[in-house]
Amino acid sequence: MSLYEVSVPQFTKMLRQLETWLDKGVAHATAKKFEPANLLAARLAPDMYPLTRQIQAACDAAKFAGARLTGKEPPKNPDTETTIDELRARIHSTIAFLGTLTAKDFDGAEKRMVPLSFMPGKGLHGADYLVEMALPNFYFHLTTAYAILRHNGVDVGKIDYVGGLTLQDV
Amino acid sequence: MSLYEVSVPQFTKMLRQLETWLDKGVAHATAKKFEPANLLAARLAPDMYPLTRQIQAACDAAKFAGARLTGKEPPKNPDTETTIDELRARIHSTIAFLGTLTAKDFDGAEKRMVPLSFMPGKGLHGADYLVEMALPNFYFHLTTAYAILRHNGVDVGKIDYVGGLTLQDV
Repeated sequence: MSLYEVSVPQFTKMLRQLETWLDKGVAHATAKKFEPANLLAARLAPDMYPLTRQIQAACDAAKFAGARLTGKEPPKNPDTETTIDELRARIHSTIAFLGTLTAKDFDGAEKRMVPLSFMPGKGLHGADYLVEMALPNFYFHLTTAYAILRHNGVDVGKIDYVGGLTLQDV
Repeated sequence: MSLYEVSVPQFTKMLRQLETWLDKGVAHATAKKFEPANLLAARLAPDMYPLTRQIQAACDAAKFAGARLTGKEPPKNPDTETTIDELRARIHSTIAFLGTLTAKDFDGAEKRMVPLSFMPGKGLHGADYLVEMALPNFYFHLTTAYAILRHNGVDVGKIDYVGGLTLQDV
């Protein structure tokens, strides 16, 4: 498998799933007659990030993985989103950036050095960075976003999480 | 990257991290003078699985990925765990099974057909199964276990989640 195959198509699909969870959040808020944006401030513990930041962080995990593994410049995102529509735009912009990356851009990504900003002088090889950091972080923030919605009564389920599959006839 | 590299070492590491979260859960319960096993029944929503089942499901995601991608017989686990020590044993047994799998066992795993029990007649190629199902499910249950503990006051943090990294000098 190439690093591209393990990352870009799956990040893209899961970010699209994330937007469907927001759709369900808006539907829930409308049915219960509360402001949909109230969900954005929800968190699972007082010292955990709220939904807005979980979505931003999931987008960043995907964006920076794509950028760092290919040497491409990622789009800047100042984390100023305060509405569901702005978070949709953030998701779309992340998907659009991923869409500019080709499988060929990932040639040599396995051994590309990814420096760690929080650990000066240290880094990870691209393959280790993807498996040990980018994927776990992406799924961490994605699942926490899902859990915040679910904890607040939004009717998301496992099918909304997993999304479409590349099915074959057995 | 081989499917082995994307799965077995990382599953193993993350399951070891999961056990450290249980350690912190026990420490929290002891400090607060409540029965540690009370945490096992905690859930984030009344129609979500409790901590026990999240841990079982994380173990299963790793175990079945290892088995299905290699054609090896997985150990049987009847999901009878009711104590933290029994869940530790479940984690250890999963890690032990993963430890029996070698990189060579994954030769040809990319194209190995993985039938889907919930969709008769359909299946996924091994590479798609790992990227689209096994990894997302593993991290889903792992992160939900983490979130349940965190929601209940257990002092786990991002370093406990990520664990050790294969660092290089830049």
